Amino acid sequence: MRILEIGETTIPVAATMSNAAIGFDEMTASAVAVRTDRRVGGAPVIGYALDSVGRYAHGGLLRERFIPRLEAAREAEIADPETGLLDPMRAWPVLMRNEKPGGHGERSAAVGVLDAALWDAAAKAAGVPLWRLLADRFNGGSADETVEIYASGGHYRPDDPVGALAGEVQDCMARGFRTLKMKIAGAPPEIDRARIEAAIDAAGGGGRIAVDANAVLDRESGPRMAAMLADYDLAWFEEPCDPLDFDLTREIAAVYSGPLATGENLFSAADARNLLRYGGLRKDRDLLQFDVSLSYGIPEYLRIVKAVEEAGWPRRRLVPHAGHLFAFNVVAGLGLGGHEIAPDANLVLGGLPDGWTVDGGRVAPGELPGVGFEGKANAMAVLGALMG
Amino acid sequence: MRILEIGETTIPVAATMSNAAIGFDEMTASAVAVRTDRRVGGAPVIGYALDSVGRYAHGGLLRERFIPRLEAAREAEIADPETGLLDPMRAWPVLMRNEKPGGHGERSAAVGVLDAALWDAAAKAAGVPLWRLLADRFNGGSADETVEIYASGGHYRPDDPVGALAGEVQDCMARGFRTLKMKIAGAPPEIDRARIEAAIDAAGGGGRIAVDANAVLDRESGPRMAAMLADYDLAWFEEPCDPLDFDLTREIAAVYSGPLATGENLFSAADARNLLRYGGLRKDRDLLQFDVSLSYGIPEYLRIVKAVEEAGWPRRRLVPHAGHLFAFNVVAGLGLGGHEIAPDANLVLGGLPDGWTVDGGRVAPGELPGVGFEGKANAMAVLGALMG
Repeated sequence: MRILEIGETTIPVAATMSNAAIGFDEMTASAVAVRTDRRVGGAPVIGYALDSVGRYAHGGLLRERFIPRLEAAREAEIADPETGLLDPMRAWPVLMRNEKPGGHGERSAAVGVLDAALWDAAAKAAGVPLWRLLADRFNGGSADETVEIYASGGHYRPDDPVGALAGEVQDCMARGFRTLKMKIAGAPPEIDRARIEAAIDAAGGGGRIAVDANAVLDRESGPRMAAMLADYDLAWFEEPCDPLDFDLTREIAAVYSGPLATGENLFSAADARNLLRYGGLRKDRDLLQFDVSLSYGIPEYLRIVKAVEEAGWPRRRLVPHAGHLFAFNVVAGLGLGGHEIAPDANLVLGGLPDGWTVDGGRVAPGELPGVGFEGKANAMAVLGALMG
Repeated sequence: MRILEIGETTIPVAATMSNAAIGFDEMTASAVAVRTDRRVGGAPVIGYALDSVGRYAHGGLLRERFIPRLEAAREAEIADPETGLLDPMRAWPVLMRNEKPGGHGERSAAVGVLDAALWDAAAKAAGVPLWRLLADRFNGGSADETVEIYASGGHYRPDDPVGALAGEVQDCMARGFRTLKMKIAGAPPEIDRARIEAAIDAAGGGGRIAVDANAVLDRESGPRMAAMLADYDLAWFEEPCDPLDFDLTREIAAVYSGPLATGENLFSAADARNLLRYGGLRKDRDLLQFDVSLSYGIPEYLRIVKAVEEAGWPRRRLVPHAGHLFAFNVVAGLGLGGHEIAPDANLVLGGLPDGWTVDGGRVAPGELPGVGFEGKANAMAVLGALMG
C-alpha cells in the first residue's frame, strides 16, 4: 500500500469567543488528505484529518518538512510486510527522522495531523472503524460501547456574560449532556461567581459544571481562585496555571481538594512524565488532558498512556483535549475516561457527526470505516475538496 | 520608526556531518530582513537575522503568523514613544498575541529570528553595536571587552573518525582557541575512547576538550558514559540525555563530578525554570546553554537570565547554544559566561566575522552598528539579497 498524493489546506476557525488567555478571531487549522493506491469497493482509500483547535494551522511545517519526508518514504518503510497495509506506527519514525529532542510544539501538531490521516487510511483499508482497529491492536480487542462525553463551551461573550451562559447550559442539558465546561478567570471575580452560579443553577448541580482558567492564574491568583471554587463542588477545575509550572500546579493541588485537570498544552511523553513526577496531581481524582493530535499523534500518545499507567494511574483518568472525531475514536478504542465535545454541530472541527445523539451524557461510536468523517457533512465539504 | 517591509528566505545548511542524534544533510535555516523607514547616513536601516542551526527554517510560521502580526502593528505598539525608535521589547507581545501557553518549539524560533532582526535594526538606528545597546539597557552599561569562546566541532566523519578529529583540534588550537567541543555517543565506546584520547592529546589536556552526547543516552548508557568520562577531567559533558528528562539529568549529576552542560533544547523560561528546579545541576560548575534565538529572542532570554539569578546562579554560567553573531552580542552585552563558535569561516551561520582573530581563547566584539553582519561577507550575500 503506497501513498500517491498528500493534500493540505488551511481553514479559518474564526469564532466570536474568547477564553482567559486568547481570542479566536484569527484562529486557523490544517485539513489533510492522503490518497493511497488501495481501493475498497471501487473507490480509492483516502485518509483524512483535521487539526485540533487552538494552536493554528501547520501548513508551512507540513509542506517544508513532514509531507516531503512521507512522500519520499519507500513502501517498505511505511507498510506492514505481512498485510501490505499502511502502518502509521512505521511511518512515525520516518516523519521524525533528523528531528532533535525537546522543543515539543508546532511540529508535534504537524506530525499529529499527518498521523491522524494515516490512521484513517489504515482503518479504511482494513474496512473497520478506527476505534475498532485501535482496540484490536492496542487494547486487547476491548472497545467501549458508549463513551462518556462532556460539552465544552461557556466562552466569554462580552455582550451577555451571564444570561447567554445559562441558556447555553440549559440547551446542552436538554440535548442529553450531563456536564458542561465553562471559561473562568477572564473577568472580575464577581462576574465569574455570577457566571458559575448561573451555570450550576441551569445544569442542576455543581458536579455538572467544570471550569477552565486557560492557564492564566499565578502564585497569588491561583490559590485565591481555588478557595473561591471550593464553595461549589465542581466537576473539575481545569488548567489553573501555566502548563509547565509544575511547582504551582502542586501548590494548587495541595489547597484544592476537588478534581483538577490539565495537560492539554504539554505535547510529548517527556512533558507528560514531568507533570506526573512534579505536578502533585492525584491519581484518584484528577484528569489528564493531553491532546492526541497536538502530541505527535497515536504513537507518542501510546507512550503517554504507558507513562501514565507506569506512574500508577488508571487510563480512565485520561480525557484528551480536542473534541474532534479522531480523538473520539482514540478514547473509545483505547478505553480512556471520556471525550470533549464542542456541541455546536455547525463547527467543522467540533460538534457531533450528523445524526448522532447524546444519551445520559454518553454517545456510541459509529460504524463507518476509518475516523468517520464521511458521516459529518461539513467536515467532508472541506476534506473532500482536497483531492481535486 | 516604522516597519516598511519584511523579507525572509530559507537557506540550506547542508553539511556532511552528524552527531549522535541527527544528520544535517537536509538542515535548513531562515534568513530575515526588516526594512524600516529610518535612514542613517543616507541609507535605510535594515535589520537582519539568521536562525540558530539545528531546528530547520521557519518560513511557514513566519509567513502564516508572525510576519503578518508585525506588519499589522501600529507604530505606537512597537516604537518607544520618547525616542521614536523601534523597541523590540514592545514588539514581542505583539508577536505573541493570541498564542497559547506551553508548546515551546518552532514558534519560539520564528519569534526569535524576527526579534533578532528587530534588535539589529534598533541598534543600527541608535548607531551603536548591539552588545553596547544591550549592556546599556540591561546590564548597567557594563559590557565585556573580550568574550571567552570555544570551538564547536568534532562531528563524526565516517571515513576517518579519529585522525580527522585530531587534525581539527590541532588546527583550532593553532588558531587561538583554548577549548574544543566534540561529539560522542554516536559510535561504539572504544571508538569514542580513541576519539577522546586523540582530541586530548592534540589539545594538550582534558580541560581543553568538551564532549557532547546530543541527548541520546538513557538510564543505563548515561551513567555508564559518565563513568567512562570520569577518567579524563574534561571541560564539560554536554546534553547527556533527553533535555526534558530532569530526573535522569539529576541521576547523572549525582554520579559525575565534572561540569555538565545542557539546556540548548529547552526554549522558554518555564522550561529553564524546571531544569533548575528538578535537574540537580550545580551552580558552581555546570553550564546552562539555552539558545537565545530558539527561545523567543531577547525578551524571553532576559526572563531566563532572571530565573537563573533568582535560583542563585551567577549569569556567567550561561553559555548560549548557537554560535552566531547575534548570540555573541548577547553574551558580550549581558556579561554571560562564553560563546560557542563553529570555527569554519565558510559557514554562513557559524564562523567568525571576516578578519576577527582569537587570542588566548577570547575575541573582542566588533564596533559595527547592530549585530555586525556587514562585517561577514558570506552572511551579507544571503541577507543583502532579501531586500531586492
